[in-house]
Amino acid sequence: MQWDGSHLAVRDVPVPEPAPGEVLVRLSRAGICNTDLEIIRGYYPFTGTLGHEFVGVVEKAEDSALVGRRIVADINNSCHDCAMCHAGHPHHCLNRTALGIKNKDGAFAEYLTTPATNLVMVPDAVPDEQAVFAEPLAAALEIQEQVDFSGHHEAAVIGDGKLGLLIALSLAHSGIAVTLVGHHPERGTLPGLETITYTDTLPDSRFAVVCEATGSPAGFSDALTLTSPRGTLVLKSTYKDPIQFNPGPLVVNEITLVGSRCGPMDKAIAMMAAGDINPSVLVDETFALADGVEAVNRAKTRGALKILLKAED
Amino acid sequence: MQWDGSHLAVRDVPVPEPAPGEVLVRLSRAGICNTDLEIIRGYYPFTGTLGHEFVGVVEKAEDSALVGRRIVADINNSCHDCAMCHAGHPHHCLNRTALGIKNKDGAFAEYLTTPATNLVMVPDAVPDEQAVFAEPLAAALEIQEQVDFSGHHEAAVIGDGKLGLLIALSLAHSGIAVTLVGHHPERGTLPGLETITYTDTLPDSRFAVVCEATGSPAGFSDALTLTSPRGTLVLKSTYKDPIQFNPGPLVVNEITLVGSRCGPMDKAIAMMAAGDINPSVLVDETFALADGVEAVNRAKTRGALKILLKAED
Repeated sequence: MQWDGSHLAVRDVPVPEPAPGEVLVRLSRAGICNTDLEIIRGYYPFTGTLGHEFVGVVEKAEDSALVGRRIVADINNSCHDCAMCHAGHPHHCLNRTALGIKNKDGAFAEYLTTPATNLVMVPDAVPDEQAVFAEPLAAALEIQEQVDFSGHHEAAVIGDGKLGLLIALSLAHSGIAVTLVGHHPERGTLPGLETITYTDTLPDSRFAVVCEATGSPAGFSDALTLTSPRGTLVLKSTYKDPIQFNPGPLVVNEITLVGSRCGPMDKAIAMMAAGDINPSVLVDETFALADGVEAVNRAKTRGALKILLKAED
Repeated sequence: MQWDGSHLAVRDVPVPEPAPGEVLVRLSRAGICNTDLEIIRGYYPFTGTLGHEFVGVVEKAEDSALVGRRIVADINNSCHDCAMCHAGHPHHCLNRTALGIKNKDGAFAEYLTTPATNLVMVPDAVPDEQAVFAEPLAAALEIQEQVDFSGHHEAAVIGDGKLGLLIALSLAHSGIAVTLVGHHPERGTLPGLETITYTDTLPDSRFAVVCEATGSPAGFSDALTLTSPRGTLVLKSTYKDPIQFNPGPLVVNEITLVGSRCGPMDKAIAMMAAGDINPSVLVDETFALADGVEAVNRAKTRGALKILLKAED
């Protein structure tokens, strides 16, 4: 499924040829992410094959031991030789491309290519319907890579969309008492969220850690209100428009704002393999790749959770 | 010197009576801060005696051992009994008043009162012209209380006003290679800043730690540009107007934004006593208390550094 900058269409394309160091992957499942929708809305300059959440099987590789393996892959293709890579932050590689987002054809296709070094093996215990969540679950786990939760037993999550729910699942699994603020109370009863407190009104209390996952300026403002002095506000979502922001309260209350993006996919897979988190409870509907445009339209529907694409068997 | 919400005037007022737990202080020196100017511009709802940077001598106290001592004092008057106080953050006391800023008459007067628990003794080695900087120097030191500089040998400071210079002095003293971005190159040669790199144009390179001390939306935008992926941007200044801010780069580059306000005054005094930092190099001019209005007008002048007020001997 390709985006040419103004139209979305399913097209027949040749099977891509892996570059040196890359493997060829046959798609099993792909997931539609809000970033895909934002590309279509014109917020990113990307054109080409969309999609970065996927699970598939290696079909061609320089290392023959990889052929036939079921894999997911980090979406950031790093040079491993720039200042950020040498500093141990390949996700921030200065020369990176990103699968289906930046200068690299993505996963909404029968075949894709990806660097062999990006692969994470998927154990049998993790079915495709879970493994396809490795990328967004890793993004949720990134919060606990960046924020020190020692001494914090509570957190608020604003936004009960796909990412907000994955964040709530991952925090709840870590034993953190989560207050989830959203507009779909039934989501507060999803498996894995038994312990959380769901609310559709902004709580009066303040939290030492607040995660903003609404993608709306109002959500940002609410999140700032919810953050206690000396607290941490984690920003997971990007916004269509600039926000109006008075940094005064942030300075006076010495709040820390943490931008957070991609996370550790190996940990995501390991947690699903251990049965710690099962993100497949977020799947709303699965479409055939050929029905990709319809699937995207469904994903755009208000209230939609995860829409998957499935390759022909 | 009093601000009634629309006019600034020097008035004769009675010597204030210390409340239980408070001491009466006779002023020696006070410093005019940008926050004082912002109050006069109407950004804060405060009315009463202005001023929070001061050094003085205790004239009356419940503990007679304090009488005659030369002191500075933390400006935050905390209840020591709320959730934030119990959490070890009295500067964020939910019931606090703040000297000359919030519900408490300030230091631009011959006499002021302050809680005895807020006092920091000033050793003989620290003259009044230095001790009067204890509060803003502490605010600069707060950055190193909040940000872990281990592994960071470089930082950029944007803004070469009073606070920016104190930040540069404190970071340079800690052995951090400081790049100071400003509009007054002569300030880059002040004693204590021998090792810094001064520039009046935004550097092309990025920094793992950037301190924003311009108080202007353009400064915030420049600071964000200067911060490397996974870097930390410290916000020290408040702004008159809300800023337009697209959080996208913050999320994508996983930047941490740290709001920073008041700091440890005991450390500030100790560093001046040890001769580590001498902030008196920032003094532009000293006025008599009676000439306070003129002094404030001088402080408002573009390019002014620290303007002090001096009580009659």
